[in-house]
Amino acid sequence: MSHPHPELPLPGPLPVGALRVVALGGLGEVGRNMAVLEYDGRLLIIDCGVLFPEDHQPGVDLILPDFSAIADRLDQVDAVVLTHGHEDHIGAVPYLLRLRPDIPLIGSRLTLAFVAAKLKEHRITPVLREVKEGDEVEVGPFALEFVAVNHSIPDALAVAVTTGAGTVLHTGDFKMDQLPLDGRITDLRAFARLGERGVDLFMPDSTNAEVPGFTTAEAEIGPVLDQVFAGATGKIVVASFSSHVHRVQQVIDAAWANDRKVALVGRSMVRNMTIAVELGYLTLPDPGILIDIKRVDDYPPDEVVLMCTGSQGEPMAALSRIANHDHRVEVGPGDTVVFASSLIPGNENSVYRVINGLTRLGAKVVHQGNARVHVSGHASAGELLYCYNILRPRNVMPVHGEIRHLVANGALAVRTGVDPERVILAEDGVVVDLIDGRARIVGAVPCGYVYVDGSSVGEIGEADLKDRRILSEEGFISVFAVVSAQDGSVIAGPQIHARGLAESGDVLEEIVPQVRKALTEAAREGNVDNHQLQQVMRRVVGRWAGTRLKRRPIIIPVVVEA
Amino acid sequence: MSHPHPELPLPGPLPVGALRVVALGGLGEVGRNMAVLEYDGRLLIIDCGVLFPEDHQPGVDLILPDFSAIADRLDQVDAVVLTHGHEDHIGAVPYLLRLRPDIPLIGSRLTLAFVAAKLKEHRITPVLREVKEGDEVEVGPFALEFVAVNHSIPDALAVAVTTGAGTVLHTGDFKMDQLPLDGRITDLRAFARLGERGVDLFMPDSTNAEVPGFTTAEAEIGPVLDQVFAGATGKIVVASFSSHVHRVQQVIDAAWANDRKVALVGRSMVRNMTIAVELGYLTLPDPGILIDIKRVDDYPPDEVVLMCTGSQGEPMAALSRIANHDHRVEVGPGDTVVFASSLIPGNENSVYRVINGLTRLGAKVVHQGNARVHVSGHASAGELLYCYNILRPRNVMPVHGEIRHLVANGALAVRTGVDPERVILAEDGVVVDLIDGRARIVGAVPCGYVYVDGSSVGEIGEADLKDRRILSEEGFISVFAVVSAQDGSVIAGPQIHARGLAESGDVLEEIVPQVRKALTEAAREGNVDNHQLQQVMRRVVGRWAGTRLKRRPIIIPVVVEA
Repeated sequence: MSHPHPELPLPGPLPVGALRVVALGGLGEVGRNMAVLEYDGRLLIIDCGVLFPEDHQPGVDLILPDFSAIADRLDQVDAVVLTHGHEDHIGAVPYLLRLRPDIPLIGSRLTLAFVAAKLKEHRITPVLREVKEGDEVEVGPFALEFVAVNHSIPDALAVAVTTGAGTVLHTGDFKMDQLPLDGRITDLRAFARLGERGVDLFMPDSTNAEVPGFTTAEAEIGPVLDQVFAGATGKIVVASFSSHVHRVQQVIDAAWANDRKVALVGRSMVRNMTIAVELGYLTLPDPGILIDIKRVDDYPPDEVVLMCTGSQGEPMAALSRIANHDHRVEVGPGDTVVFASSLIPGNENSVYRVINGLTRLGAKVVHQGNARVHVSGHASAGELLYCYNILRPRNVMPVHGEIRHLVANGALAVRTGVDPERVILAEDGVVVDLIDGRARIVGAVPCGYVYVDGSSVGEIGEADLKDRRILSEEGFISVFAVVSAQDGSVIAGPQIHARGLAESGDVLEEIVPQVRKALTEAAREGNVDNHQLQQVMRRVVGRWAGTRLKRRPIIIPVVVEA
Repeated sequence: MSHPHPELPLPGPLPVGALRVVALGGLGEVGRNMAVLEYDGRLLIIDCGVLFPEDHQPGVDLILPDFSAIADRLDQVDAVVLTHGHEDHIGAVPYLLRLRPDIPLIGSRLTLAFVAAKLKEHRITPVLREVKEGDEVEVGPFALEFVAVNHSIPDALAVAVTTGAGTVLHTGDFKMDQLPLDGRITDLRAFARLGERGVDLFMPDSTNAEVPGFTTAEAEIGPVLDQVFAGATGKIVVASFSSHVHRVQQVIDAAWANDRKVALVGRSMVRNMTIAVELGYLTLPDPGILIDIKRVDDYPPDEVVLMCTGSQGEPMAALSRIANHDHRVEVGPGDTVVFASSLIPGNENSVYRVINGLTRLGAKVVHQGNARVHVSGHASAGELLYCYNILRPRNVMPVHGEIRHLVANGALAVRTGVDPERVILAEDGVVVDLIDGRARIVGAVPCGYVYVDGSSVGEIGEADLKDRRILSEEGFISVFAVVSAQDGSVIAGPQIHARGLAESGDVLEEIVPQVRKALTEAAREGNVDNHQLQQVMRRVVGRWAGTRLKRRPIIIPVVVEA
């Protein structure tokens, strides 16, 4: 397998009859998935999601794919295909549509319902085109076929895109639960038909490629929930992702079996499950089983289940606030909290903080570490091998993963007989051309992280984040002085302000005489240029901070003449 | 089991014949372990370690136990017993000895060797008293007996402390590998003898109390390493904790079996393993097997193993630098990197960043997710149950864990028949008295986090950390203006400086005219008080940042008269 080349040139023009593929997000990170296909001057986008920031990206709200490679070609975009309704596949759609609101969005009913609700919050009215598995749709030069796949949200689709260059099959996110709650399996017969016709480029979900074996079935959780509920004497609180319809279904079923009502808690949980009920994806054993959160106290604790958000320890979500005694819902001895959710790598500290908080309140906490209350939504190595053998793709470009996931997925392909030269390990921005049935890396386009920060999009850059990290680790010191315009003598100040350094202001006052002395000497030497005086202040303060505090804060020296 | 009370008073004086126990660290977090026992006016300290900061404690280097409860009683401390040489048990000793350098340190040979090396770096010469398992030692009113325990560092000890109030047994950190590499098992016969004499208070390690079953044996890793080494065609790099002597032993043994030399990489790895070889804890199959890092290039890649630090993705340690192409050691296609280490919760992002970096360089990466190259150092529930049944303690106070771990450990005790009223769930600062064979919570002393930050100890407080977090998420804006002392009109400025906000300085310049206008108006209204003018500036800038940027940066407004 060829590894991604660090130094790739901009690609040349697209040869006639060739298909060009570039990921603008989702390859090299788990999140902000976005693939762009180009054929004969037209573009097709598959997914447009967001990535959530890590701790070294402080203050950032969301990270978007980098649209710059197509920013001046948006009129050539024929459609955006949305494989399913998860944030890392639809979350950036509002930001794309801001640039061109009439780009058609193609997806299944539930996917479009979720994205429409999101776009309504952004006050954008989209052009929607609903499809379902089995549909065949022409969009510009792209002939699309949709295939049902099973995932941790209902109504997920894989899409086969056929052009003069051949057929590309993109799985979206998928697994292969053979007895899913809704009976909607990943359609391997459709994969078989596509395989027989010939798949020129296979783009499979790499998330669990490193995990040997097979992903556990969702239905195995039901009996565990039932057992936990049956043994619970007080209130039950369950946390999961607000889009996990089947997980909520199992919670509702277990509640029903144990004579408990269910209250949905958290704005996104209420919104998403309301949509799911309306569209028939969530089945209520009885219309009265769902009660409003405000009515929970009308019932004894052992007759309620609260289905809430916050499974990742997000500070503002319901569960963290419950753990912090900052929510109308109170939890205490005798109550049970179930984290029916994954623990996304990076979120461990937040989640354990909430678990400890709930434990301190006296609750019993059940989570995937001590009970089978979660299964993954992604195919493991075992399922991926089935796919490679059924599809026998001519070329493979693993998607949806960090490089370790992509490499592991590529290795699986090779083990089933795919020529290593035809396994493309690309990262965001790397351009791949499919010509005459052969896929190759032909160059790369710039592709950075685009930060949504407060109201700004793309204004915060790496330099700002570096400043923020320095600020957080070292703090800052501002020094202000007013000097005479005539002779540079100090008229007022120096005044010193600092944050994040040391609680005692006295510590800082040590430096003031040193700065004044340095300024006075500089003026005596005829140094009256503001910039030079600021540099003098910066040096004195920096040296002092380094020696006295062993810190390197950001220093803002300001000299003003008067 | 009674849960820790949120509102506990200061404890009263210690009754005659009673033993008082308080943890100043280690209960409620995994780290900074320190227990203080008091009897008849004398104090005995068990362990004195550090806690490593999380991302919400930016810039902090280390977190110490809170010595304030004993700060004015240090002359009453008879000794510090150090159960083993891990940082979370010895790392804070230098900071304690700074306060009273002649406090005797009691521990095993390897433990004292590690702590002496650490103290040398702090230029402190300690009073050392070496003991080994089986020794009985009197220290003030405390009769100490030492028991061998097996852990992920050699020469670990449990300590039984007998006074007029009875016997306390503190396990230190332990597990119960029955076939350990050095043959030094956790001495259950000694536990049985203590149990028959009577254990009044048992203080067991809770780290793995939530994990059912038994901890895997260290020796199971050897064959896995051998298999990985045998199949490796290029260079091999192995990362583990620099104090894990037995892990390094297995790496050396596998290297020997596969005709490879071993180079130690990283300052602490070299220092600790040198001590271990000198004292006979690490056995070299041949004196020539260890080579200096500078000589690695004298050998073909398939004849070397590099044993290095950085298993937790620490940015400055060897492995991260190797992954970043910032180290004399280079890694590429054909090379193998083994993370023979745990993944401490909270470090996932750092570790995966390094794994992805190494993968991008073309290396094969082996870690506990895909091979048995690590086992825990702590007893699981299965082993803890053995201990409760053999010791049959009268009272139990779980130690060494977050509250979820302590609660799980307490639950195990109850299942073996310990009266729930005699299971003490305490956190740092909670005071427990053992009187007439009964342990009870009697109050709490203040016990906060003491931050080591640069050269300061205990100067950075929660307010500073909160400022740093705000700085990192929101940035800051300084506004500086010079006004006339006569009429308050603006003489110079306003000048605006910001960091961590937006890359474009133009954005900030928007606010300057608004600030000038607000200052001029305030002056016209007769508002010439500096403080009030600063408040005016703060309000204008704050409102602008909130509306225009949707951010709430720290604002430093400075008005100077001239």
